[in-house]
Amino acid sequence: MPEYRSLREGIPMLEACMTPDLASEITLQPVRRHGVDAAILFSDIVLPLYAAGIGLDIVPGTGPVVTNPVGDAADVAALPELDAGQVTPVADTIGLLIRELGETPLIGFAGAPFTLASYLVEGGPSRNHERTKALMHSDPKTWHALLEKLAETTLEFLRVQLRAGVDAVQLFDSWAGALSLRDYREFVLPHSRRIFEGIAEVSDVPKIHFGVGTGELLGAMRNAGPDVVGVDWRVGLDEAATRLRAAEPAAGAPVVQGNLDPAVLFAGWDAVEREVRRILDEGGRVDGGHIFNLGHGVLPTTDPEVLTRIVELVHTTTAQR
Amino acid sequence: MPEYRSLREGIPMLEACMTPDLASEITLQPVRRHGVDAAILFSDIVLPLYAAGIGLDIVPGTGPVVTNPVGDAADVAALPELDAGQVTPVADTIGLLIRELGETPLIGFAGAPFTLASYLVEGGPSRNHERTKALMHSDPKTWHALLEKLAETTLEFLRVQLRAGVDAVQLFDSWAGALSLRDYREFVLPHSRRIFEGIAEVSDVPKIHFGVGTGELLGAMRNAGPDVVGVDWRVGLDEAATRLRAAEPAAGAPVVQGNLDPAVLFAGWDAVEREVRRILDEGGRVDGGHIFNLGHGVLPTTDPEVLTRIVELVHTTTAQR
Repeated sequence: MPEYRSLREGIPMLEACMTPDLASEITLQPVRRHGVDAAILFSDIVLPLYAAGIGLDIVPGTGPVVTNPVGDAADVAALPELDAGQVTPVADTIGLLIRELGETPLIGFAGAPFTLASYLVEGGPSRNHERTKALMHSDPKTWHALLEKLAETTLEFLRVQLRAGVDAVQLFDSWAGALSLRDYREFVLPHSRRIFEGIAEVSDVPKIHFGVGTGELLGAMRNAGPDVVGVDWRVGLDEAATRLRAAEPAAGAPVVQGNLDPAVLFAGWDAVEREVRRILDEGGRVDGGHIFNLGHGVLPTTDPEVLTRIVELVHTTTAQR
Repeated sequence: MPEYRSLREGIPMLEACMTPDLASEITLQPVRRHGVDAAILFSDIVLPLYAAGIGLDIVPGTGPVVTNPVGDAADVAALPELDAGQVTPVADTIGLLIRELGETPLIGFAGAPFTLASYLVEGGPSRNHERTKALMHSDPKTWHALLEKLAETTLEFLRVQLRAGVDAVQLFDSWAGALSLRDYREFVLPHSRRIFEGIAEVSDVPKIHFGVGTGELLGAMRNAGPDVVGVDWRVGLDEAATRLRAAEPAAGAPVVQGNLDPAVLFAGWDAVEREVRRILDEGGRVDGGHIFNLGHGVLPTTDPEVLTRIVELVHTTTAQR
């Protein structure tokens, strides 16, 4: 959105996340422009690591770059954990938002331990996650110690958001789809579950879990304990719901969310409308309904007008049900 | 491999592919060093496009960069198709290899139409394939015209390889896993099937099909007509075989191949051995057996010694069966 680019001009990402009036204004922009049903806290996956004192920077065009990547047990032992006081600006941002948003709910946001670990071990974004996978397979003890620490940091970050008043939380495991189900269950699931359990201990807000390319992992992700599971465009909502229901226990499967391929937003309105209607149809057939959403983040060059029309179409169509 | 880096030093990728004594020597290197059971023709996915006269270059660290990306029907109409005479050096490479390889079979190689189209439409490697997906959804007629041309080029390239004497062919659809099953069936499958049908018209060599992250697509990829389907590490060989068998017709499902995560090769020998044995166990339980392979290409910084030990372990273990 042009208004976002204009606000962010000259301000580094992590600084923007830690500046309450700026971060709250950015959070409000899509609500004002598109009329979406909820706001999502403007933040970044690596923010709690940065706030905890881990040397890292978000380099435009590259992504997060970690000054001293984590390689062994000593590195893990030296890794600081987040203290609530280090993210006071995030709590202040949420305070400002709660006053502005009125009836519109605010969704909190944090990265899941595996995705954070990949950034720390690789030193930045990685296509193949080879150092991360090498650590988990060669030294499971160090791996689990790392993920325990990251789970505590993530949980602390989400607790701060909950105390400040968010109405739901989303745990983003961006890279989980790079793992086999076997590795996900052994090396990742216990730590993501710890976070959802920790949230449930202090709050009863809805808990959302999401990752890209996680069709094979949906049953296991359900077992982490979320109330909502987001899917990308590779698996339809009806099929995703079936896979979530196939996991134990049979009752109480999470609600499904997502499925619109962000790339389709470049294909012109006819194609977009067709896809939106297909998702509303498929999602409408799922017991317990669905939450309409993209299957991944909005791509930077997307025409914002298309998003406004999608929100209108979803609202009009679902109002007629 | 150091001997590969040494041979390639100062020689651009596409030039190396088009220089028979060099390309044949590179093809032989892993056979000599690791004792693998087959050689794979040293080539590049975009080679037939380059040979047909499409302006492109492989930029180290980036990948293929296309001078004039394809955007509309006029661009597609202007796109040259490959003529067999333009890849004579590839036929010559195969001729040299057949003489050198003796009993070791040689596998030919080409990129599938969707992956080639993505390079042409995006102008280079793409994470989200948004221009490609926009074209397929907004202008299906132009999309299908583009894929028909690319299928003809690929088929011509493989026919040249078959006439020169390759013992099998592999069709690589690197990016197919970015698509939903619905889009794959409508926009990609007919064109990949055309290639396998075209090969079957002139030869009865085994036909291998592979893509990364294609767990959702395996049944459809089978319907393209391959004899072997490669899978990455996200789906086990037994599960992959089940999905291939679930597609119609029930009889004659393809053989499965692959499954070792190339990232695991960085985790030390104990972890590698565990994974290799697991794959041999799972693959050994599949009716019709399996072909041992990595689940994707060897990563550049892999220790070649690990690959040699893997080949030894696979040979020793399977000899005892």
